[in-house]
Amino acid sequence: MNIKNILLVSPMYRELQGLIEKEASHKIFRFMPEEELSQKDVSWADALVSFNLKADYDYNTVKWVHSLGAGVDRFLHKKDWNQGIVLTRTICSFGQRIAEYCLSYVLKDLQLHDRFQAQQQQKNWVQSTPKLIGEQKVLVYGTGEIGQRIAKVFSGLGVDVYGVSLSGKEKAGYKKVMTVDSHFSVLNEMNYLINTLPLTERTEKLFDGAIFNQFSSAGFINVGRGASVDEASLLQALNENTVRFAVLDVFEQEPLPDSNPLWNHPKVQITPHISAVTTPREGAACFLETLKNIDENRPLTNRVDTKKGY
Amino acid sequence: MNIKNILLVSPMYRELQGLIEKEASHKIFRFMPEEELSQKDVSWADALVSFNLKADYDYNTVKWVHSLGAGVDRFLHKKDWNQGIVLTRTICSFGQRIAEYCLSYVLKDLQLHDRFQAQQQQKNWVQSTPKLIGEQKVLVYGTGEIGQRIAKVFSGLGVDVYGVSLSGKEKAGYKKVMTVDSHFSVLNEMNYLINTLPLTERTEKLFDGAIFNQFSSAGFINVGRGASVDEASLLQALNENTVRFAVLDVFEQEPLPDSNPLWNHPKVQITPHISAVTTPREGAACFLETLKNIDENRPLTNRVDTKKGY
Repeated sequence: MNIKNILLVSPMYRELQGLIEKEASHKIFRFMPEEELSQKDVSWADALVSFNLKADYDYNTVKWVHSLGAGVDRFLHKKDWNQGIVLTRTICSFGQRIAEYCLSYVLKDLQLHDRFQAQQQQKNWVQSTPKLIGEQKVLVYGTGEIGQRIAKVFSGLGVDVYGVSLSGKEKAGYKKVMTVDSHFSVLNEMNYLINTLPLTERTEKLFDGAIFNQFSSAGFINVGRGASVDEASLLQALNENTVRFAVLDVFEQEPLPDSNPLWNHPKVQITPHISAVTTPREGAACFLETLKNIDENRPLTNRVDTKKGY
Repeated sequence: MNIKNILLVSPMYRELQGLIEKEASHKIFRFMPEEELSQKDVSWADALVSFNLKADYDYNTVKWVHSLGAGVDRFLHKKDWNQGIVLTRTICSFGQRIAEYCLSYVLKDLQLHDRFQAQQQQKNWVQSTPKLIGEQKVLVYGTGEIGQRIAKVFSGLGVDVYGVSLSGKEKAGYKKVMTVDSHFSVLNEMNYLINTLPLTERTEKLFDGAIFNQFSSAGFINVGRGASVDEASLLQALNENTVRFAVLDVFEQEPLPDSNPLWNHPKVQITPHISAVTTPREGAACFLETLKNIDENRPLTNRVDTKKGY
C-alpha cells in the first residue's frame, strides 16, 4: 500500500504534529481540527488519522484509516464499511491504564475507603477489617488486549479471574474462559464484574436484566462501551442490590447529559471516559509504528476485522 | 522450654478459645478479657498470649510471651525486658494486608478519585488523565516482613521501590536499600513514602522537619507506629505542601483524641489502625504454629530480638 498524503484530524492536532511530523519527514501531512475539515482534504488524503469519520463526506478514495482510539464503533457500528479500506486502531498502554483504573476501584471497595472517610468526618474511631483481594473472584467480559492485561494484573495479586468471550477460548491470566451463552451459572459467585467488550451488534445492550439478575451483590465496572448496558436494567439492579455498586467510565451518550439519573445515584461512581486516555505521545508512537509496518509491508497487529467490528 | 499452662488475654478471648483449645488439647488454657486478669493467673502461667502487658503485675515467672500483634513496642518500648523470657510476635498476612492498604491509597491518588467524585456531584464532565503506577517512585522505610511484601507488590506493578533500613542491606523487591543516614539525597525524587518501621529508640520521632523538608510534594503513608512521626512537623509539611497528602493508620495516642487537628486536616486521611488487623483465625494459626515450634525445639522465625526491639 502506497501512502504519501496523510490527513490527521484531532482536537490535539498541534501536539500530534509536533510529535509526528519530524519522525516521518518522507510523508506529506495535513494536521487540523475537525471543524476545518473539508471534502477536498479527504479527497487529497491516502490516509486518514482520526477518532471518527465526520459524516457527509466521501471517504472512498482513502486507502487507510487509523483510529486514534482503541474502540472503533464510531467507524463501524451501524455503518457500512468499504472493505477496500484498511482500518487500524491505537493500542498502547490502554490495557495497563484500564487495569489500574479497575484495580483502584476494587481496592477502594475492599479497603472500605468510603466508610473510613465518613467516620473521619464524625471523628469516629471504629475498626472494620478490609478484605484481601486474593480472596475475590473477578469476571472480565472480553479476552482481548485489554481484558488480558486486567487478568494479568489481578491474577498477579492472587485473584481468580474468569473470562467471557465469543469463542470461550482459554487465554493467559484467566482461570477459565466461558462463552456468553455458558457463563450464567457462575455469575452469582463473582465479587466483581468488569466489562471491556467492544460495541458490536452482539454486545449492544448485552447487560440487561437477564444478566444483572444473576449477580449476587457484586460490583460492576464498565470500561467497554456505554451502549452495551441497558441503563434501566442497571438502575433496577442497583436498587435491588444484585449490583452493589457500579463504576462507569463510558456511557451511551457522552458527555453524560445532566438529566441522566446515573449522576445522582448513591451507588454509582462516574468518571468522564478517562480509564484509557491516549496521551499524545502514546498516540503518536502507535501511529508511527503502524505507518512503518505499512510502508514495510509487515503484518498489522492492530488491524481491525471490520466484519467482526473489533 | 516446657510449656504447660497457657494464659490468653484478649478482648477476642472467646473466639480465640474456640479456635485454639481443640487444636492444643495437651495444654491447659485460661482464656479471659484483660479486666479479669489477676496476679494469680500470671503466676500460674508458663506462657502469656496477649497484645500487651498490663502494668503492676510480676511477669518474671512466665517463660514465653507471644504478642497477638506484629508490633511489640507495647512490650519493649521504654520498658525493661527480662532477657530470660522468650518474646514472639504474630506474623501472618500482615504484609499482604498492609501492602494492599498502601496500594489502594496510592491508586486512589493516581486515579484522581477525589477529583472525579467532586465533579460527579457537580455533574461536571471534565477529563483528566490518571497517572500510571509504573512511572512512580516509592520509598519504603523498613525492609522486614512487611516492607518486603510492600516492595514485592509494588515492584510487581512496575514501580521503582527504594528501601531504608538500619543496615542498608539489599533485599528482594527493592531497587536499592539505603541507611537512614544516607537516604536524604533521594527524598525529593520520591512520589510516595511509606513508613513500616517498628517503634524503637531509633525510630521515635524519626519523621521530623529534617526529613519532611526534603520531600517534594509527596504522599506519605504511615502504617508503622504513630510515635515515629513528629506531628507538628507533619502538619507544617502538609501546610507547606512538601507533603502533598498523608494517609495515617497509626497514631501516638489511639483512639485518636477528638481534639487532635489531624482529624480535620483536608490533606489527611485517617483510618482506625486497620491496615493489619489480625483476624482471630490468623492470630490463632500463628500462635499454634509458634507453640508447635517451641514444643519441638525448632527455630522461631517470629522471635523478637528484645534488645533491638523488633
